[in-house]
Amino acid sequence: MNFASDNTAGIAPEILAALAAGNDGFVLGYGNDDLTRSVERRIGEIFEREVSVFLVPTGTAANALALAHVSPPWGAVFAHAEAHILTDECGAPEFFGGGLKLVGMPGVGCKVSPGTLAETVAHYEGHAPHQVVPAAFSFAQASEAGTIYRPDEIAALAKLAHAHGMKVHMDGARFANALVRMNASPAAITWKAGVDVLSFGATKGGALAAEAVVFFDKDAAAHMAERRKRAGHLLSKHRFLSLQFDAFLNNDCWVRLARHANAMADRLAAGLAKIGLPPVWPVEANLVFILLPKAVEARLKASGARYYVRQSQSLPAGVAAGPDRCLIRLVASFATTAEEVDAFVALAAKG
Amino acid sequence: MNFASDNTAGIAPEILAALAAGNDGFVLGYGNDDLTRSVERRIGEIFEREVSVFLVPTGTAANALALAHVSPPWGAVFAHAEAHILTDECGAPEFFGGGLKLVGMPGVGCKVSPGTLAETVAHYEGHAPHQVVPAAFSFAQASEAGTIYRPDEIAALAKLAHAHGMKVHMDGARFANALVRMNASPAAITWKAGVDVLSFGATKGGALAAEAVVFFDKDAAAHMAERRKRAGHLLSKHRFLSLQFDAFLNNDCWVRLARHANAMADRLAAGLAKIGLPPVWPVEANLVFILLPKAVEARLKASGARYYVRQSQSLPAGVAAGPDRCLIRLVASFATTAEEVDAFVALAAKG
Amino acid sequence: MNFASDNTAGIAPEILAALAAGNDGFVLGYGNDDLTRSVERRIGEIFEREVSVFLVPTGTAANALALAHVSPPWGAVFAHAEAHILTDECGAPEFFGGGLKLVGMPGVGCKVSPGTLAETVAHYEGHAPHQVVPAAFSFAQASEAGTIYRPDEIAALAKLAHAHGMKVHMDGARFANALVRMNASPAAITWKAGVDVLSFGATKGGALAAEAVVFFDKDAAAHMAERRKRAGHLLSKHRFLSLQFDAFLNNDCWVRLARHANAMADRLAAGLAKIGLPPVWPVEANLVFILLPKAVEARLKASGARYYVRQSQSLPAGVAAGPDRCLIRLVASFATTAEEVDAFVALAAKG
Amino acid sequence: MNFASDNTAGIAPEILAALAAGNDGFVLGYGNDDLTRSVERRIGEIFEREVSVFLVPTGTAANALALAHVSPPWGAVFAHAEAHILTDECGAPEFFGGGLKLVGMPGVGCKVSPGTLAETVAHYEGHAPHQVVPAAFSFAQASEAGTIYRPDEIAALAKLAHAHGMKVHMDGARFANALVRMNASPAAITWKAGVDVLSFGATKGGALAAEAVVFFDKDAAAHMAERRKRAGHLLSKHRFLSLQFDAFLNNDCWVRLARHANAMADRLAAGLAKIGLPPVWPVEANLVFILLPKAVEARLKASGARYYVRQSQSLPAGVAAGPDRCLIRLVASFATTAEEVDAFVALAAKG
Repeated sequence: MNFASDNTAGIAPEILAALAAGNDGFVLGYGNDDLTRSVERRIGEIFEREVSVFLVPTGTAANALALAHVSPPWGAVFAHAEAHILTDECGAPEFFGGGLKLVGMPGVGCKVSPGTLAETVAHYEGHAPHQVVPAAFSFAQASEAGTIYRPDEIAALAKLAHAHGMKVHMDGARFANALVRMNASPAAITWKAGVDVLSFGATKGGALAAEAVVFFDKDAAAHMAERRKRAGHLLSKHRFLSLQFDAFLNNDCWVRLARHANAMADRLAAGLAKIGLPPVWPVEANLVFILLPKAVEARLKASGARYYVRQSQSLPAGVAAGPDRCLIRLVASFATTAEEVDAFVALAAKG
Repeated sequence: MNFASDNTAGIAPEILAALAAGNDGFVLGYGNDDLTRSVERRIGEIFEREVSVFLVPTGTAANALALAHVSPPWGAVFAHAEAHILTDECGAPEFFGGGLKLVGMPGVGCKVSPGTLAETVAHYEGHAPHQVVPAAFSFAQASEAGTIYRPDEIAALAKLAHAHGMKVHMDGARFANALVRMNASPAAITWKAGVDVLSFGATKGGALAAEAVVFFDKDAAAHMAERRKRAGHLLSKHRFLSLQFDAFLNNDCWVRLARHANAMADRLAAGLAKIGLPPVWPVEANLVFILLPKAVEARLKASGARYYVRQSQSLPAGVAAGPDRCLIRLVASFATTAEEVDAFVALAAKG
Repeated sequence: MNFASDNTAGIAPEILAALAAGNDGFVLGYGNDDLTRSVERRIGEIFEREVSVFLVPTGTAANALALAHVSPPWGAVFAHAEAHILTDECGAPEFFGGGLKLVGMPGVGCKVSPGTLAETVAHYEGHAPHQVVPAAFSFAQASEAGTIYRPDEIAALAKLAHAHGMKVHMDGARFANALVRMNASPAAITWKAGVDVLSFGATKGGALAAEAVVFFDKDAAAHMAERRKRAGHLLSKHRFLSLQFDAFLNNDCWVRLARHANAMADRLAAGLAKIGLPPVWPVEANLVFILLPKAVEARLKASGARYYVRQSQSLPAGVAAGPDRCLIRLVASFATTAEEVDAFVALAAKG
Repeated sequence: MNFASDNTAGIAPEILAALAAGNDGFVLGYGNDDLTRSVERRIGEIFEREVSVFLVPTGTAANALALAHVSPPWGAVFAHAEAHILTDECGAPEFFGGGLKLVGMPGVGCKVSPGTLAETVAHYEGHAPHQVVPAAFSFAQASEAGTIYRPDEIAALAKLAHAHGMKVHMDGARFANALVRMNASPAAITWKAGVDVLSFGATKGGALAAEAVVFFDKDAAAHMAERRKRAGHLLSKHRFLSLQFDAFLNNDCWVRLARHANAMADRLAAGLAKIGLPPVWPVEANLVFILLPKAVEARLKASGARYYVRQSQSLPAGVAAGPDRCLIRLVASFATTAEEVDAFVALAAKG
């Protein structure tokens, strides 16, 4: 019963097999190989557009490299106050970005509204050169709360960002999970809605360690190769990044894996709701958050269930943890089984 | 006939097998797992000392993180002018180190002598605060020329460095190749000789992407975890880094693989010497450099042989490339076969 | 009627005279002169302790250099959300600090309470290495709202900060204004209360451009000379920084100038209160904030009065700007005259 | 007999008087005043072109801000190995430039030839993304050896730099000294010859602390205001920077002061040559370098003469310091008198 994170799972079988299958022979390093070119083209096809693609081993690297490339050191990057880039990357965007400033914003379900964005950005205008300059809006899709932004929501935010001279970055560590929930194409929820650069995650989805920074405007990617290299994120045996992505994308593997993870989250949410533990936010990706009585929580933990207790300022009005119950996060992955889900629910039901 | 680099090879079978074997089940991410602890202990055993270990995916990351941790932003890091950190990392040490300065030094065979180090460091003393401050001496073992530093050579350099308040960093991307050439223990050529921090490479030796930053003084590693994280080099599915290192070190796999690579380099050097193409530097690791007539070079390339033409200011006196011949680098790896070596020599012999 | 800032005033006569008096002859540059040593000693006497002193031309430089020296790049610096370092320095602390993170906190009158500090810091503990590490607490004395921290308030905050391994930085751009309001010594409101490093301002107090970074622990200042130099803040004709500080400190000039500025602020506050425009925060230094009817504001501006309209989230409960009135900041300086003050009040009274 | 540096002199009388004259009344800070606009226009007139001007207090700041603005963090900045930016700024360009790399080049008299530049740049091409990218060529006018570049020399270097996609930066700490030696206009030796950005120095020429970063292409200066601010180099009482520059430029004051300094250097050189101590490099600005017998040197120092003993790798062929004589640098300034010069020569003559 491990729901601690989608990164506690291993490598999806399709991807592991690809590593083995592509291991033979000699291949030029640093991405100077045919498969890397093919993966880049394939990502372009998926997004229905020529793109610039940079494969890296971690999501933190993808986010920080992307943000540093669209923001000057004196830039402000606006994001939800509980965004991964603010709370879990130990200052990577600030480091890569030469001291850029992340500005946190509130919003229920870890989602930022256009009104909040507009109001926050307004505080960073009209006082040049004493203040950092609005440079980018970054949002996670799916969000850290497991909620998602619909195409029209993205478009409204992106339009606002662009009107203020900002670029739009999507942290897509769980991009697939968001995508498969919507009846929309990859293009529709990214560049067609105004996203300029995407951190396209494969690791949480089933890869060993593979993320892609995708620029929808190739010009904006100039010299990203140097930025990646000097950050130590250009793998010498780069073929193994490409092999991971190739297998991830082939035959809709990524979509299938994400559908499974989401289905397991749905099953978990439904089961828990039935026993009086409804999710605090809509379950729109592979994350389920519930308020759990502490006594139950102790029993679950003792039984070997794994998950994290979290804190959040973005709970819906009237919903709160307290002395008797805590907020817990349950994450499903490609490797989660229905049996585990049902076992967890059954255990929780013994409240 | 691929001698372009040891990173054009794939994953050693033992290591690939380990990835598959360790793939089952859920494991906590970010290195919070038992295997990672075990690998750390194992590295300590190999070096006969308690150490602090940080696994990362690339050698550039290992070097830059290590150097940034032992040098302040106003530090000078002294290294051979043709060291990888100066010529092939696109400024990673400067980036990680907040703008530290790399100072290149001359030396035949990409090796720095104590005299040269002393003379160079002298230029950075006595003019505070107008100059950067001597902070570290960094050297590659094996060097970029495939030469190695003997324990007494290391000790002399390290003693000098320490006397000037500097730390000593060893770039061990090819540490195994150097080690197996000498009748010396890992401890003898590192901390016992004065090395403070080591980039211990596994990638070139046969891993997918795995390097270890090893601090021989645990106190000196304080907060390296944060530095690694904010550089995006803490892998979420960290177990796969540990699995690589575990397999690399188990049953002397790393030693065996390095011996093979070195043996192939020796065979290559011997074969080429026999046909009048002696190595320009002693072949002490898995690299062979020769001066090749350009006509032969063209034929080899046309035949599909792969290697790089290089330039160097550190050739022995009286040895030089010129209009008729060029310096080429041939790298052997765990995957190089005697057949390939012999085929290359045979082809070159048709001069 | 210029109340825009204390930096719209010129140079105090005593200081200007000192520049002229010290201009003759040749003096070694970069602070290698007797007067600089003397100023350093004098500051030590004022603070009743051996100190390390670094003179720089701007307050932003003093703050950013000080913070960068007490925080690693992965450090969090906690300060009031409306602190100058967060809102008016265009990211200087982040730049100097290699990407450190400033964390804003709420508090009425731009003052932070120990409770708020404790609660905020708690969010940055227990999640290593994914989060930045608490490194420093910074507060302005006097604050941006013109309020001051009493010795016991400082001591409580500093004790808390130290208990969490943090250093304490005081932004004393208006240190003199705060000091003269209290019956306390410079030592009592700095290191005796737990302050580790002070930005000791002279510019707003009457200098041309002179601030001192004062370390109360000399060891903590190691290599600050290099940090200052590489930031371009070591003046070649350093004697003129020293001359400014020397004149500022001689014969209690700084105290006298600050008393005057404060007295003018008091007169302004009293006059405005009498006509129904009481200060929104206690007037404890040389700043007066009032809520002014917009009609009056327009008339004042038209009459040539100079000041800034501000926004603040730190107004006392029940006090707010709105559609009809705005928050304005009035700053008195050594150069402010009673006539100007009275003229302004009279004009405002015509409401 | 102080020839230690042009920054051991004080403030030129014209400039000191201007500080006093401009001290009255209130003036908006941070350069938002009429005089600053006027100075900017005046500099444009001098250079016969619309320019963007940023006043800062130090030459190190001017150089580092300029270089950081024309080079990305992965840029290489090529300059003479003994250039001030390499040897005397404690890594300021690297710090401001986010870790850019300075590449030193040889050349007699601290001057770089086009051939040397071409050859050096060639080492930084063709190996992307493993190497830093040629970004700028920087040279000092006058050079650190007191030599100057003629318009055609600048044009040749600039043409080469531009052909490689680089910008051209002139470190004009002694711009006036170079200018008055040639029969050429400020425009002719800067943008008309291909210079993109100039550090235009006034401090060594007679100011207290005032330098101007001058961009000849206004677009290239976008957001330099933020860069300056976050470096702490935007003075609050900015009028005093403008007053210095205004007085420096008015009535050809700067030209007059430079002519005097150069004349004193010439007198010194002539006097020393006559007694068998000819300058090692042509005296083209206000610096004189000679090889002095150590016995004489000891006597001069004992007599109170002040200067620096230097080392240089850029002496003309056949000229060298040695066990018996050392290289000394003598700097004349606006404040140097003929009496001092003659006294020094007379003393030296007693050899």
